[in-house]
Amino acid sequence: MKKIEVIQNVLEANETIARRNQQLLDKHKVFVINIMSAPGAGKTSLILQTLKRLKDRLNIAVVEGDVASTVDAEKVQSEAKAVVQINTRNMPESCSLMAAMIESALKDMPLDNIDLILIENVGNLICPAEFALGEHKRVVISSLPEGDDKPTKYPLIFVDADAVIINKMDLLPHVDFDITAFRRSITGLNPEVEVFQISCKTGDGIEKWCSWILEQAKASAARQ
Amino acid sequence: MKKIEVIQNVLEANETIARRNQQLLDKHKVFVINIMSAPGAGKTSLILQTLKRLKDRLNIAVVEGDVASTVDAEKVQSEAKAVVQINTRNMPESCSLMAAMIESALKDMPLDNIDLILIENVGNLICPAEFALGEHKRVVISSLPEGDDKPTKYPLIFVDADAVIINKMDLLPHVDFDITAFRRSITGLNPEVEVFQISCKTGDGIEKWCSWILEQAKASAARQ
Repeated sequence: MKKIEVIQNVLEANETIARRNQQLLDKHKVFVINIMSAPGAGKTSLILQTLKRLKDRLNIAVVEGDVASTVDAEKVQSEAKAVVQINTRNMPESCSLMAAMIESALKDMPLDNIDLILIENVGNLICPAEFALGEHKRVVISSLPEGDDKPTKYPLIFVDADAVIINKMDLLPHVDFDITAFRRSITGLNPEVEVFQISCKTGDGIEKWCSWILEQAKASAARQ
Repeated sequence: MKKIEVIQNVLEANETIARRNQQLLDKHKVFVINIMSAPGAGKTSLILQTLKRLKDRLNIAVVEGDVASTVDAEKVQSEAKAVVQINTRNMPESCSLMAAMIESALKDMPLDNIDLILIENVGNLICPAEFALGEHKRVVISSLPEGDDKPTKYPLIFVDADAVIINKMDLLPHVDFDITAFRRSITGLNPEVEVFQISCKTGDGIEKWCSWILEQAKASAARQ
């Protein structure tokens, strides 16, 4: 039983740091979105599209979480106000970002000059569901080629999401994916969730997603 | 430092059980393949195609690992000699199968009447790399829509693989994926690895993969 007890301690410690992160972010009026998905569902592409549309309206920073490499940080570097790459490879939990990693990343950021931080979590539908980071909104991307059964097989990450993005809509003619069944599964787990259908490749649906970010950031600021 | 120490104990205990599993499997002349991939890369489809081609030549059992649900076990039920579904949702490690779970599954199987067990691990490119199950061969599936940078971002799972399967080749005209660059990344990490290009949708390349299984099973039996 020792292991479970230790995991419990880790989760509790994480919650405490996550709350502290959110207090710091609120003090500096920074809105934070935690973007989670399976590997290759389009987290970096979504961040690039979001930067393109919103960088003239908001000062945006990006935190890139990966087991190894800096390829994603390099991709967003030229468009973001600040970028921090976190490699989890040699950390006790390599399968997710954790609040303590974000706490360190925030120390490297000019928070008074930032309005929005987009956090790209490690590509994984399991572990990231367990670790709050201090974010204001949690977003899960599911892409069409993964299949429409993901909410049934990985329910926890969908239960706690504020928004689910269905990406790679441009591949609809080429894959078997029942959008109605998928939407039914998600809303069955999480009736209040927002759902966006987009293609990061063509740009379809990105505008609506960006409007949602602006609304949510405004609502969050009004609550402070 | 307590957490790291406990993880170390878990990994060591896992190795011991994995070795015990392999001894049991060798005693009963059962060849076992551990199939790993990101969610939705095609593990179940590969198992279905393999069952279709090999079920008249080998007695094949399947172990299905999922966080939740029995959808995959239901899909393979009619073609496999035996199926065990493992749900990891409430286990201390929900992000991977572990040797102890396989040990329990083997107790439910008529090992003397089985030649091959295909284990479908939990959809995840991180945790499954750490836990040996007692398998003879480790296979990783990467599918084209995930992008060609996966070996760079999740190196560990590719380093230890005996074979890498590039799936969803039918989507090549519709996605950005550089096969030469991908193959170069994998062989850079793991020069001895076998690489198969297949489409579980069209069946292309499945024959070559099935021939490899037959050869490997034969070679393993000869070593006993």
